[in-house]
Amino acid sequence: MAETSTPRTDVSQTNAALSNPRADLESLDELERRLFSLRYAIDEIGSLGPVIDPPRATEERAEALAELERQRAQTLSNPLVGGVLERLGKCPELLSDTQKAQLRVLGRDRDELVRVPADEQAAFSRLTCEAEDVWRRAKAASDWESFAPYLDRIVAARVNMAKERDGGRDPYDVWLDDFEPGCDRAFYDTFFSQVKDVVVPLLADCSASRHQPSRACVEGSFDVERQWALARDLVRLEGVDEDALWLGRTEHPFTGGPSTGFVLIAGHVHEDDVLSNAFTMLHEGGHALYEQGVDPAYRYTSLKGGTSMGMHEAQSRFFENYVGRSEAFARPLLDALARHFPGRFARVTPRQLYLAENRAEPGLIRTEADELTYPLHILVRYEIEQLLFSGEATAADVPRLWAEKYRAYLGVEVPDDARGALQDTHWANGEFGYFPTYALGSAFGAQLRHAMVAGGVDLEGACAAGDLAPVRDWLRERIWRWGRAKDSFELIRDACGEVFSPTYYTDYLAEKFSALYRLGA
Amino acid sequence: MAETSTPRTDVSQTNAALSNPRADLESLDELERRLFSLRYAIDEIGSLGPVIDPPRATEERAEALAELERQRAQTLSNPLVGGVLERLGKCPELLSDTQKAQLRVLGRDRDELVRVPADEQAAFSRLTCEAEDVWRRAKAASDWESFAPYLDRIVAARVNMAKERDGGRDPYDVWLDDFEPGCDRAFYDTFFSQVKDVVVPLLADCSASRHQPSRACVEGSFDVERQWALARDLVRLEGVDEDALWLGRTEHPFTGGPSTGFVLIAGHVHEDDVLSNAFTMLHEGGHALYEQGVDPAYRYTSLKGGTSMGMHEAQSRFFENYVGRSEAFARPLLDALARHFPGRFARVTPRQLYLAENRAEPGLIRTEADELTYPLHILVRYEIEQLLFSGEATAADVPRLWAEKYRAYLGVEVPDDARGALQDTHWANGEFGYFPTYALGSAFGAQLRHAMVAGGVDLEGACAAGDLAPVRDWLRERIWRWGRAKDSFELIRDACGEVFSPTYYTDYLAEKFSALYRLGA
Repeated sequence: MAETSTPRTDVSQTNAALSNPRADLESLDELERRLFSLRYAIDEIGSLGPVIDPPRATEERAEALAELERQRAQTLSNPLVGGVLERLGKCPELLSDTQKAQLRVLGRDRDELVRVPADEQAAFSRLTCEAEDVWRRAKAASDWESFAPYLDRIVAARVNMAKERDGGRDPYDVWLDDFEPGCDRAFYDTFFSQVKDVVVPLLADCSASRHQPSRACVEGSFDVERQWALARDLVRLEGVDEDALWLGRTEHPFTGGPSTGFVLIAGHVHEDDVLSNAFTMLHEGGHALYEQGVDPAYRYTSLKGGTSMGMHEAQSRFFENYVGRSEAFARPLLDALARHFPGRFARVTPRQLYLAENRAEPGLIRTEADELTYPLHILVRYEIEQLLFSGEATAADVPRLWAEKYRAYLGVEVPDDARGALQDTHWANGEFGYFPTYALGSAFGAQLRHAMVAGGVDLEGACAAGDLAPVRDWLRERIWRWGRAKDSFELIRDACGEVFSPTYYTDYLAEKFSALYRLGA
Repeated sequence: MAETSTPRTDVSQTNAALSNPRADLESLDELERRLFSLRYAIDEIGSLGPVIDPPRATEERAEALAELERQRAQTLSNPLVGGVLERLGKCPELLSDTQKAQLRVLGRDRDELVRVPADEQAAFSRLTCEAEDVWRRAKAASDWESFAPYLDRIVAARVNMAKERDGGRDPYDVWLDDFEPGCDRAFYDTFFSQVKDVVVPLLADCSASRHQPSRACVEGSFDVERQWALARDLVRLEGVDEDALWLGRTEHPFTGGPSTGFVLIAGHVHEDDVLSNAFTMLHEGGHALYEQGVDPAYRYTSLKGGTSMGMHEAQSRFFENYVGRSEAFARPLLDALARHFPGRFARVTPRQLYLAENRAEPGLIRTEADELTYPLHILVRYEIEQLLFSGEATAADVPRLWAEKYRAYLGVEVPDDARGALQDTHWANGEFGYFPTYALGSAFGAQLRHAMVAGGVDLEGACAAGDLAPVRDWLRERIWRWGRAKDSFELIRDACGEVFSPTYYTDYLAEKFSALYRLGA
């Protein structure tokens, strides 16, 4: 019917206007397929490398990754691509919502690269690949000296790249914004000050309390192979799709995802700490759920994968803490532990397990930190990164700064660099501005938790039953499926019906730990 | 001194001539780095995929591989690359021997691609990735019907690609030449007829002999995990560099090599056949030694890796048969078996093991075949491939043809397709023309063995001592280090001081099996 009412001239005009965008839309698809394949290769080679590759693989792997990164950068920064994105941006009426989101994300990815020469990107990739290897050996030997020159070189390279990208902006702000679009030092300074104002006195009160939770019920030695079987059971319980999962072993646990059908989790088991493994798995499983939960329609586009480090961390911490360390979940967790270690947990109650897993104890290792002290570990790193980027400190100062800040915020003495500034792999990988997203993610997660419960999900019931389908459904619908099509702050606003606020996080911590330690009781 | 005798005009002319080649040499290096990274990605993703990826990874992996293949093809077939190769080819005086070899190999790789459209290459990669998955399930269910349509499509695609590449040539000849430069049906027809003339009557004599070697000493059940430990021990004994090795588990054993520092061996253990595992490992280890032994100077060039399938197979069969199944090596092999299965081999003599491992027995499974019957398994496949490519047969005819030829050459009845035409993965991967190289490789190996001994290497002593360093040194110097810088027939000629002759192979088989079966005794 529309045909009869549409004059022929309009049709031919539309065709003329379409002719160019049609070719541009084909170019967009071709670009996305190429980027998909390069990301796939970089993710698989980069993720598996440190986990399965033999020692002599390092040098050639570094070269391959640098070259693939260079091709990704060259592809994105090609002026022809700029033209396609620009022309398509002028015809929003021809674009689906997905294509509009692709343009936005591609434009941003392109902006990140176009001002940094491809050779420099490649050299940086090579440097960090080498540094990762040096760091691994430095950590094993607790030898800061061998790693320090690499840290200085990596910081210098990062400062330089930030200046090339936006000379008018503070270099550290550039990287903070990369890991979490919309964030800078001003934002994080405010955020961390709110967190510190609550957590530091709360931790002091907990430490002073007469009611110290005991970890006795989870102490002792736990067979490593049984722990690996437990690990697999826990990601299954969490609802990770095992048909799209590879589970491996590494020094520093992580989750990677070449594709929505191929997510990698590498864990680490400590014979003397069964809970460490359990919560690592719930944490990494949360990352895996996010990757697997992205709309399959996005899989060959730049919208594939989580939207930011902070939102990724929100999912992992949701399952680690808001599910995993809840009192309700202590029952199914205890059942899982008892299944793999028959007899060992016969006399343990869910309440005892809940207390044991939530003991707030200032420690040295970030990845082993409890929920309350965790953001203080992040604060130390955030402050040191600022000093390195402002030039107020160099790598040589880091062990001293580390020791001072751990003493000041956590009240612990750092005995060596392996348990100090060498504990994390992030700096070796050039990932400055990443750590703050861990704390921010907890705050995102707390707000999501509040909105989920306010929206009618029986979170406690789901945890108690060990059936997390309602939790996954809520998060998949509001967060996961969107991939990179929405930024974190937009996701939070749409999912929660209000803008981001760290109060849900600090309120949650205050309530939980006041009850646990019977403060004011 | 030369300067004074060289007129200025000559120098400036040389400079003018150099200005272009210099840029071209830089382009050559850039091209090689890019190809290296794409090959690295394709090899790692493609090799590890079927071994470690979860089931849902298949579709996206296929897409990633197809797209990476497309980029490799686009890179090589770019007309600018053709110009660079052509211009450099005209200035041999400016090129090192390595660069000359690069030009030759790149030119050949380019010729293989330039006439086949990139989209067709990508579609083929996607088709075989899917077919590999279908084949896996078809084999498990012994269901030829489900795989047959894929085989017809793959053959049709291969015929079409061969015609695009060289319309004046028989399509099957094109692929035979790809896997082994210089070979065609005429060559292989002669080769196989020589082999058949010796092997078929020899096998008949062996079968009729009163002296049948017994396998009793290696029969029974052998713990799978202990067999994996044995597998690692055997590649170590063979001299594979474990710091550049990843050892995994798969259905169909293979060796892959993203880089000289990262070689992958995937093996397969049968609980009821400990020798199968042992010789698979020695075989794959031979491939690994070749990959690891290439001149490190070649690692970022197209000269990296083995020169052809036939020469690769020569190395694997050298270590599997000419070392592994020799009487001298029975002692160190028996020691290894006894270490991993204490008590089981206490009463076995090296002579008994030697007889057990060399029993010539017509069977159904190529990869389990003994040295004597092996080329007959290849002959069946070679003849069927010819029929498929000439159009005289389609996939529907294959089970019948398979049964007829196994009856005729090997005297065995094929009970089902899993133990028939579905046993190998090659056709699912589109690798027609590959099988004949297995038999040719044995013949290459036999000639190398003869030359090595004639050249003064104490092969028997090295085998008896379980120290294969002299064998490796001889092969590394003459074969491995050259990578793709020389073709097989050139390598054979340079290593052996004469052109290729299959007589060394047939003489070896006749001598070995006549003695084993005491023929004419």
